[in-house]
Amino acid sequence: MEKQMRRGLFVGRFQPFHIGHIKIVKKLLKSVDELIIIVGSSQLSHELENPFTAGERITMIKAALDEEGFDQKKFLIIPVPDAKAHAIWVNEVCVLTPRFDVVYSNDPLTCRLFKEANFRVENIPFLHREIYSATEVRKRILNDDNWEELLPKSVAIYIKSIDGVSRIKELALSNKV
Amino acid sequence: MEKQMRRGLFVGRFQPFHIGHIKIVKKLLKSVDELIIIVGSSQLSHELENPFTAGERITMIKAALDEEGFDQKKFLIIPVPDAKAHAIWVNEVCVLTPRFDVVYSNDPLTCRLFKEANFRVENIPFLHREIYSATEVRKRILNDDNWEELLPKSVAIYIKSIDGVSRIKELALSNKV
Amino acid sequence: MEKQMRRGLFVGRFQPFHIGHIKIVKKLLKSVDELIIIVGSSQLSHELENPFTAGERITMIKAALDEEGFDQKKFLIIPVPDAKAHAIWVNEVCVLTPRFDVVYSNDPLTCRLFKEANFRVENIPFLHREIYSATEVRKRILNDDNWEELLPKSVAIYIKSIDGVSRIKELALSNKV
Amino acid sequence: MEKQMRRGLFVGRFQPFHIGHIKIVKKLLKSVDELIIIVGSSQLSHELENPFTAGERITMIKAALDEEGFDQKKFLIIPVPDAKAHAIWVNEVCVLTPRFDVVYSNDPLTCRLFKEANFRVENIPFLHREIYSATEVRKRILNDDNWEELLPKSVAIYIKSIDGVSRIKELALSNKV
Amino acid sequence: MEKQMRRGLFVGRFQPFHIGHIKIVKKLLKSVDELIIIVGSSQLSHELENPFTAGERITMIKAALDEEGFDQKKFLIIPVPDAKAHAIWVNEVCVLTPRFDVVYSNDPLTCRLFKEANFRVENIPFLHREIYSATEVRKRILNDDNWEELLPKSVAIYIKSIDGVSRIKELALSNKV
Amino acid sequence: MEKQMRRGLFVGRFQPFHIGHIKIVKKLLKSVDELIIIVGSSQLSHELENPFTAGERITMIKAALDEEGFDQKKFLIIPVPDAKAHAIWVNEVCVLTPRFDVVYSNDPLTCRLFKEANFRVENIPFLHREIYSATEVRKRILNDDNWEELLPKSVAIYIKSIDGVSRIKELALSNKV
Repeated sequence: MEKQMRRGLFVGRFQPFHIGHIKIVKKLLKSVDELIIIVGSSQLSHELENPFTAGERITMIKAALDEEGFDQKKFLIIPVPDAKAHAIWVNEVCVLTPRFDVVYSNDPLTCRLFKEANFRVENIPFLHREIYSATEVRKRILNDDNWEELLPKSVAIYIKSIDGVSRIKELALSNKV
Repeated sequence: MEKQMRRGLFVGRFQPFHIGHIKIVKKLLKSVDELIIIVGSSQLSHELENPFTAGERITMIKAALDEEGFDQKKFLIIPVPDAKAHAIWVNEVCVLTPRFDVVYSNDPLTCRLFKEANFRVENIPFLHREIYSATEVRKRILNDDNWEELLPKSVAIYIKSIDGVSRIKELALSNKV
Repeated sequence: MEKQMRRGLFVGRFQPFHIGHIKIVKKLLKSVDELIIIVGSSQLSHELENPFTAGERITMIKAALDEEGFDQKKFLIIPVPDAKAHAIWVNEVCVLTPRFDVVYSNDPLTCRLFKEANFRVENIPFLHREIYSATEVRKRILNDDNWEELLPKSVAIYIKSIDGVSRIKELALSNKV
Repeated sequence: MEKQMRRGLFVGRFQPFHIGHIKIVKKLLKSVDELIIIVGSSQLSHELENPFTAGERITMIKAALDEEGFDQKKFLIIPVPDAKAHAIWVNEVCVLTPRFDVVYSNDPLTCRLFKEANFRVENIPFLHREIYSATEVRKRILNDDNWEELLPKSVAIYIKSIDGVSRIKELALSNKV
Repeated sequence: MEKQMRRGLFVGRFQPFHIGHIKIVKKLLKSVDELIIIVGSSQLSHELENPFTAGERITMIKAALDEEGFDQKKFLIIPVPDAKAHAIWVNEVCVLTPRFDVVYSNDPLTCRLFKEANFRVENIPFLHREIYSATEVRKRILNDDNWEELLPKSVAIYIKSIDGVSRIKELALSNKV
Repeated sequence: MEKQMRRGLFVGRFQPFHIGHIKIVKKLLKSVDELIIIVGSSQLSHELENPFTAGERITMIKAALDEEGFDQKKFLIIPVPDAKAHAIWVNEVCVLTPRFDVVYSNDPLTCRLFKEANFRVENIPFLHREIYSATEVRKRILNDDNWEELLPKSVAIYIKSIDGVSRIKELALSNKV
């Protein structure tokens, strides 16, 4: 029943969703019954720091959760755009999601905003953060380094299927201008 | 794998999600491998025609799918706000969802917009539409008629848990002004 | 000091600010130390139901408070636009105003939204509401009836100084189309 | 040279552009050197009252001006969306257009807004307004009456080429709901 | 009466309102009868450069004016968000405020925009600008230097009461990312 | 007739429109029957990189096309604002313009977005790009170098007539802050 379930909110941009995220999801599932994955800055795409659309990121997350064999009953994946003001963003998240009990994030601003709105916020224990990071993935794609080893197989296959490597390389040219 | 799966898009406002919607979902699952449920007009709530927030509607849908015992791996539930212009709404849906193969809707405008964008659109075979309708549910709530029989049990319980009946009755007063 | 003061929020559209509003303000000042007057739907103007800009409405309110000889230290007048969604409007009010302890309104939707956000809400005891109403003022202006008797003198003078009577009459023509 | 030229602004929604508009353009060209045609409510389309996109309306206007053999050097066709507030709409028009000397419109709100901003506004002498009206065109399309006789040939051909008749008929179904 | 009064507009972001602002207000009151204090960029908060909400900034200004014993009848404090375009911002200010006679600002862009709209603009004689600056206040807060001496007492007390020091320090961490 | 004509889309910000643009237009007219000139980022102005409003830029383009003696029947000049998301910008362009066959641009992001939407995209052969560039024009204006030689005469005259040089120099001061 709705009331007794413990729900967590996992907030990220997932540009792209990588093995580090999978490790976090595994840990969080020990503490919550359901996990709402917030695909933040959902309006952003086709930028060097934000190459993928929300729909593409949701496809990646869904594929990775399937690949790992998680019980999908435990997940919701909800895209949330940036608000016109930081001070109303938490409210906009609440309007788009089921009620939740705890927020997981490592971003100081996200943590601050949820704390000021009286939510329980917990940091995410994060192993090998310097390697398992979306920034590192995008850097390796630009440099033709081994980026695929940082991603679930299904995510790497998907990125190639939508020609994501070319997209990131072309966006890099645009940002140089 | 991403490519070979057949995905359908089921578009509605779900104010609220009722037994008619459940019947439709059952039928559609015979034609598609995955169903993306679009919670339309996601920005609307606290109006007589649109009493529930997107988060509340998603909670209802999730609860109803659980109650029916559907394989949740087959679903995504995505909130999509109205666009500033009808002519870009289909594009905004596409940006927020994985690629899909067919759109299910009975609303002429929704059908028209997707057809003009060259999507395959199919009408939804809908039984007892005059009874199983969200308008009917809201009307019965206002009139203290038996509205619960039109909803999955979990949805009726949820609406009562968030004091939805009072909300609808108060909104009716506001609309009289 | 900030903490011990009791602040009330008086929410209205004030199209225009009339003698009924003055009577309410007088009553509310018995219960609160400071009153924040929210000029709602601040983006609306040049509509038959909403003829005046927020700036014009603020000018009226300021003039009326001066005319009555109220201690202006007790007031703040803050314009707040409609939010893109009812469910975030209360949050937007909070972002634009000092903290407050109680909300005064007779509009069922406004009351509902603040109650759901756990604010204390009180109805406004309102005498002769059928006469002292903005709707009545606008109707009389259209019909060349005695509208000035419903307004503080300074407000009537101001409306004439900005040619408000012609504006309302022309807007009526536009709405007929 | 920029300074000595006399420019007029002709404001309309042009849903669709019809023979009445052509007659007006002819008259206005006697008073101005250049005519800026504002395609208003440019964000609207796929509504029964506003079936065509701004791009489609611009295509119609351009085609009709070509058909009539007007000197195209005398025209600019600029789409302008509705503003979030009536009180800033005139300013938004000014930002999107070259400086102009006179505004032509018959809509009381449009006239009012430009007058309050100290622009010179002139009504449009309009013959047979009950027949040459966009409302009449849309009504005839719905009723399978002779709508083509109200339009420049090129506009009628264009509307048929984009299947505009079906669009309007389907939108009518949606509005009935 | 409305017509004969001389009103000035004092434009700032007030992140936070400091003793320099108080000195300016004192000077300006010698030239105008009423001063409209525009709290600019009212949508911004929770950024290192813009830590406080408009409501918090208004609370500060109100408290400081009270502390100084100014006649509050002479003030209006109006929050104004950034416009979607610089070229319409002046118009948005005008819509939200009573008519005014002169604009006070030292920001070249603000001055430019008001001048192009034919307003009278005056620079603000500003003593010890290198010390009495909001940037300096925020820097001292970050470095645990004496920031309180730059603020009216009531403002310093208020910032501590809302835990503003922690907020700024956490935002600094976020900006480092 | 609408169908057989070949239309090209020439996308730029034109801050300002210079001789390089004229050279491009001449070349493109050899390949297309009509050219739609998109004035991009139409909401931007009064920034050092974007000093001119869309209306001012349209005035420049129109004047330059007149000066060159082009057949104006071949042109449409359409302002298009930035979209809230890159992924819907191409759709917004399509809504505001007649159908087109080929897109001309050298910006990698613009090219990428149109290619992903299955449009034909061609680069623009651009001579002396280091000199005939809007950046160079703005730099020379700031440095009191010979900027007029880079512009069509009518554009230089227009910029001086609106006091554009002062505007750019003042904006430079604002950006220094």
